[in-house]
Amino acid sequence: MTEVLVTEVGPRDGLQNEKALIPTEAKIAFVDGLTAAGHRQIEVSSFVRPDRVPALADAEDVFRGIIRRPGVRYVGLVANQRGLERAQGVDCDTIAVFTATSKAFTLSNIGMNVQDSLSRYAALTRAAHAGGLGVRGYVSTVFACPHDGPTRPEDVLRVVEALLAMGCYEVSLGDTTGVGTPTQVRRLLDTLVPRLGADQIALHLHDTWGMAIANALTTLEYGVRRFDASAGGLGGCPFARGASGNLATEDLLHLLHESGFETGVDLRMVASAASRLADSLPHPLYSRVHAALRAQDDEFGGTSC
Amino acid sequence: MTEVLVTEVGPRDGLQNEKALIPTEAKIAFVDGLTAAGHRQIEVSSFVRPDRVPALADAEDVFRGIIRRPGVRYVGLVANQRGLERAQGVDCDTIAVFTATSKAFTLSNIGMNVQDSLSRYAALTRAAHAGGLGVRGYVSTVFACPHDGPTRPEDVLRVVEALLAMGCYEVSLGDTTGVGTPTQVRRLLDTLVPRLGADQIALHLHDTWGMAIANALTTLEYGVRRFDASAGGLGGCPFARGASGNLATEDLLHLLHESGFETGVDLRMVASAASRLADSLPHPLYSRVHAALRAQDDEFGGTSC
Repeated sequence: MTEVLVTEVGPRDGLQNEKALIPTEAKIAFVDGLTAAGHRQIEVSSFVRPDRVPALADAEDVFRGIIRRPGVRYVGLVANQRGLERAQGVDCDTIAVFTATSKAFTLSNIGMNVQDSLSRYAALTRAAHAGGLGVRGYVSTVFACPHDGPTRPEDVLRVVEALLAMGCYEVSLGDTTGVGTPTQVRRLLDTLVPRLGADQIALHLHDTWGMAIANALTTLEYGVRRFDASAGGLGGCPFARGASGNLATEDLLHLLHESGFETGVDLRMVASAASRLADSLPHPLYSRVHAALRAQDDEFGGTSC
Repeated sequence: MTEVLVTEVGPRDGLQNEKALIPTEAKIAFVDGLTAAGHRQIEVSSFVRPDRVPALADAEDVFRGIIRRPGVRYVGLVANQRGLERAQGVDCDTIAVFTATSKAFTLSNIGMNVQDSLSRYAALTRAAHAGGLGVRGYVSTVFACPHDGPTRPEDVLRVVEALLAMGCYEVSLGDTTGVGTPTQVRRLLDTLVPRLGADQIALHLHDTWGMAIANALTTLEYGVRRFDASAGGLGGCPFARGASGNLATEDLLHLLHESGFETGVDLRMVASAASRLADSLPHPLYSRVHAALRAQDDEFGGTSC
């Protein structure tokens, strides 16, 4: 199978920790640009408590403002019944629920342990399905937790199984702190793929330690054909100074397209959408391919060496 | 075989296009730091015409100033008899000769075509061997040439065969503009390794398009155990704005060590050497692992979030 589904997470995961105030109109234009680029699944915003994630407090306005292309999933993050109601209030048709593999991380991130989060999400998923919404699952810290250390693949398996059993149509495996390596990807997928198959698994990679593209390449060997990525490399781990959080959509698309996979997404249009958003940011983008494309354009335009 | 030889090219390839004036003492301290880190092969400087590469015009002073650990190869780039004599004048025991696969590139880089360069280097290698020096070969543009387009693997094979036949102890294959992808690495090594074996081949990767680590991972599958890398990601293609030239030694070492390979090189000591050199540079370093290590140190030191 040569088709890969890239889920664009820039508007939500990419911007949630952004310190700069980004105008709602800029976010809407960003999502519209990503839709125009051909993305089929876009994480638009988060219906969590605005005081917890103030950068995404305008979730309703963004959902109301964007142009929705039929067949494209526009995803909103949801942690509880209130969030689901907010999502339904703006006709969001796909929600994402998020937990992790480690007790310490789920406690600090969502204020409960892993098992309690799964119980809550089972009820939430039932309610969402009853309302006709699709539910995507997220599992953070699949390789290691900043508090609890290395993650056992069996612990990831258990959480993914629970999310699929409750009806999530896919589960995204998050290397939250970007510490994964090809060896760790193998260990994880050696455990997961024989039990779950490859069809409902996505990898959500961070490039903090420079391994994201190599990890994606290793993932492809297992038949997994779903990845999350963030236009311009927006977002990611806030403690990696001057660097490098989410795997950049441009870098992933370059790898995929050059390796013979089809995504339906136009690399240059993603880069354009990221460039326009970057006008609202106080820092540069983190994508190598983005920088190389811009340098090439400058060269062709005759403005640089 | 789990041992990998990493050739450190930061002092030469990393600095040759640097616009800032770097004090000779800083270069000497850089090489000494890389020696202390455990490198067994270090490209120190270039004995080409100083008017062509003014940044390395102090080659003799650097060679005279560095501490040489027995068993470590300190390499000087040489293009002709005059360069060989300069190298011998400072007891440089290993020279590197450099050509490319494409006529346009060799013409612009060394002023002759590929065949003429090989004839010249055959004579130069004989003279070097007669003087007791080792000779390393470089082939640029192994995936594509900025002027001539894609490179045929058979053309690389022919040049590598010629360099080995004249007595180069290893040949480094350069992705000069960083356009290589895992698919292209496979095509090249599918041609080379069955004919030449893997023992005398090194890969010299650039990260301009973000694929260097993935390319290294693919290379390892072929049994190739030699790579060039540049501390801090110094150097590289000058037209990639704000980015990303040579594969950073820190990033490569992280991949190798986490994948179970031994290099004998201390990652943190390489990063320290690069950090000290960076005090003389007007721009940041380009290594993700370097940035992540520094962020970690800051965190542990309590100076940042």
